[in-house]
Amino acid sequence: MARVDFTHDPAARSWVESANGHSDFPVQNLPLGLFSPSSERPRGGVAIGTKILDLGAVAPLLPQDAGDAARLADSSTLNNLLAAGKDALRALRHGLFRLLTDPAAEKSARPALYPVDQCKLHLPVHIGDYTDFYAGIHHAVNVGKLFRPDNPLLPNYKYVPIGYHGRASSVRLSGEDVVRPNGQTMPPGAETPLFGPCKRLDHELEMAIWVGRGNALGHPIPIKQAADHMAGLSILNDWSARDIQAWEYQPLGPFLAKSFHSSVSPWIVTMDALGPYRIAQPARPESDPAPLPYLFDSDDQQNGALNVTMEVYLSTARMQADGQPLHRLSQGSMTAMYWTVAQLFTHHSVNGCNLSTGDLLGTGTLSGATDESKGSLLELTRGGKVPIRLPNGESRTFLEDGDEIVITAFAEASGFVRIGFGECRARIAPSPQWEL
Amino acid sequence: MARVDFTHDPAARSWVESANGHSDFPVQNLPLGLFSPSSERPRGGVAIGTKILDLGAVAPLLPQDAGDAARLADSSTLNNLLAAGKDALRALRHGLFRLLTDPAAEKSARPALYPVDQCKLHLPVHIGDYTDFYAGIHHAVNVGKLFRPDNPLLPNYKYVPIGYHGRASSVRLSGEDVVRPNGQTMPPGAETPLFGPCKRLDHELEMAIWVGRGNALGHPIPIKQAADHMAGLSILNDWSARDIQAWEYQPLGPFLAKSFHSSVSPWIVTMDALGPYRIAQPARPESDPAPLPYLFDSDDQQNGALNVTMEVYLSTARMQADGQPLHRLSQGSMTAMYWTVAQLFTHHSVNGCNLSTGDLLGTGTLSGATDESKGSLLELTRGGKVPIRLPNGESRTFLEDGDEIVITAFAEASGFVRIGFGECRARIAPSPQWEL
Repeated sequence: MARVDFTHDPAARSWVESANGHSDFPVQNLPLGLFSPSSERPRGGVAIGTKILDLGAVAPLLPQDAGDAARLADSSTLNNLLAAGKDALRALRHGLFRLLTDPAAEKSARPALYPVDQCKLHLPVHIGDYTDFYAGIHHAVNVGKLFRPDNPLLPNYKYVPIGYHGRASSVRLSGEDVVRPNGQTMPPGAETPLFGPCKRLDHELEMAIWVGRGNALGHPIPIKQAADHMAGLSILNDWSARDIQAWEYQPLGPFLAKSFHSSVSPWIVTMDALGPYRIAQPARPESDPAPLPYLFDSDDQQNGALNVTMEVYLSTARMQADGQPLHRLSQGSMTAMYWTVAQLFTHHSVNGCNLSTGDLLGTGTLSGATDESKGSLLELTRGGKVPIRLPNGESRTFLEDGDEIVITAFAEASGFVRIGFGECRARIAPSPQWEL
Repeated sequence: MARVDFTHDPAARSWVESANGHSDFPVQNLPLGLFSPSSERPRGGVAIGTKILDLGAVAPLLPQDAGDAARLADSSTLNNLLAAGKDALRALRHGLFRLLTDPAAEKSARPALYPVDQCKLHLPVHIGDYTDFYAGIHHAVNVGKLFRPDNPLLPNYKYVPIGYHGRASSVRLSGEDVVRPNGQTMPPGAETPLFGPCKRLDHELEMAIWVGRGNALGHPIPIKQAADHMAGLSILNDWSARDIQAWEYQPLGPFLAKSFHSSVSPWIVTMDALGPYRIAQPARPESDPAPLPYLFDSDDQQNGALNVTMEVYLSTARMQADGQPLHRLSQGSMTAMYWTVAQLFTHHSVNGCNLSTGDLLGTGTLSGATDESKGSLLELTRGGKVPIRLPNGESRTFLEDGDEIVITAFAEASGFVRIGFGECRARIAPSPQWEL
């Protein structure tokens, strides 16, 4: 299966002018989303430059297989399109690429274009289950040191793609405020727990992986077939209440510390779009134990990692009021993943668990090995001990009300254009007053 | 709000003769489910004796408010009915009780009755999220002793209703086989993990709590309003792979050890049906710390616990072939819950997490203080060290292929009839051969 084809041609240009040059969404990207033009009904679209192309509207202009896929997207979720599988997604990509690069197609397709700033974006799929992995090995070591100084990386880490079930109902689209959670905490030295607003509110830099075709209960996904089940990626911010987490997480793992809100970016960058940016697995040193056979595939080892870079920015309420630019907190990469996306799919289903179309898999926080690449404030401030100084004189250990976190991401490779993921942003809103 | 009304009258009798006498489903119960008469479409029904009453079919025979509720149940899930809230459920209960006890109504209602053994039962709701709590304090102590002998009950247990996110996609109706999961294990003395079928497959005796009306993200449910959000209870068996769990669960909790299958019984016994069986919270000794104020309500302390008894039975393949009766493994009770159902709802949402109609909350394993009341094989066999001897000479530490576990439950109180929950049963099927 070729991972690079004509749709990755770096010389290709679209008749949508804003897609040429420095756009997250050149014609080589074609990410999928759900949008409403002004007050109309939600429908599937593809981002191209500063525009969105209405998939249902252009279905008649596409070849049969691409048109069929586009019609599946003409719905209030993209679940039906993602369920159709990777062949349908590829046919759609090929058809859209030809449509958007063919000057002769402009006249008939242009009426299906909407300026993104005149559209409302929606969560693109109905999420059945949300699983968050812990695949960023540097994050696992950094956090392990804080919670278990004597035992940062547990003995299972290099064998088991550690993950846990997350909360699907509170996954929200980028842009929706995050209400600071109330909860129980046990501050150092306290004899009984306190109740009140979280004091150690944090972001987590992650990528979201969307499940395309599902598997039946009792029928695991072999690693060689894992690619058949992947739809694409978005940016994920898995907001975390560190003080609540520290008190509640034993023995069953994080619960209310995570379930109050998770933000995802609106555009699904398909696995096909990411073909040129695949690289060999960099995070597993040769000296580490080999993956168990069910997690091993030589092609996956050679091409299963993704050269995707993410950047986290902070803007405080004062910075926003003063019109100051975003302050970059860190830069991370998907190359920090100890496990490939294929390994996550296979491990998740190896016990027979059924993944469903629209399920969301989080990578876990993708911190790098350096201070500049730490993907959470917990790590950046060494557990809140070392505040971050901002250019305007403010400082932060954890997030304050009014703070906004913006995460961007892009994929790049020599000889190919750079493609982007858009952004995942949300602002912190104050806790509700709690009525006893 | 009266918890006991005319629908709990122990003298009431139905014109459905099988509902009178020793039935799980007397007219005082009226649990809700989803069924198909022979090959017809699924629809909502209520169990009465050995029959199911088609709710949509009797809607015209009911008063306006009850008829409206019955029509909401005429659907492929009960979500719309449960979302209508407790007033709708109560109106439906009152209307059905009058219909089924009024001899004059028999002629018009009888055509809507179907023998349960000629119907197919379905999972009654679409489950959004599944959360499993850990509210059985004796189970927490028993398991804590096995995993952490020096530290069985962690310091947070008596303050925090411990829970974790479970897997919604693999929750199945009673009767569907449980495929033994494959997975990684690290046997004592091994240097690297093994892969293969689970060797320590276990049941967990739990009750399922169904969410009725949901709450919006960022808007917690105060404990005084928790009852407005409860729909009812079923029996839950949260199958567990103990060897997989022991190796994977640090630091983020159980994952593949639980996500391969969870079984629920088909009938939702409504909170209104359970009114007479409410008692004061027995599992929290006076000397224990008081619940934090957000978890405290004096009425809930006096009436928030439920006198529901559950029994677990085993039948091996040989016992089934020989026609031997089920062997009772244990008897548990919801009185083992350290937290009330209301406390679970309030705690779950206190951080702003939105519960949705049809969400499933598990109580956690409800072991009692005695050996005869241990709700899992892990506890009954002391971690697999003490086999259970069966009457036919077989023995078990954990479950073997072909074994069937059957859980039943009932509520009882002096001066009221006993009502039952039906049964939750499933058999173990062998692991699939794993193709590398």
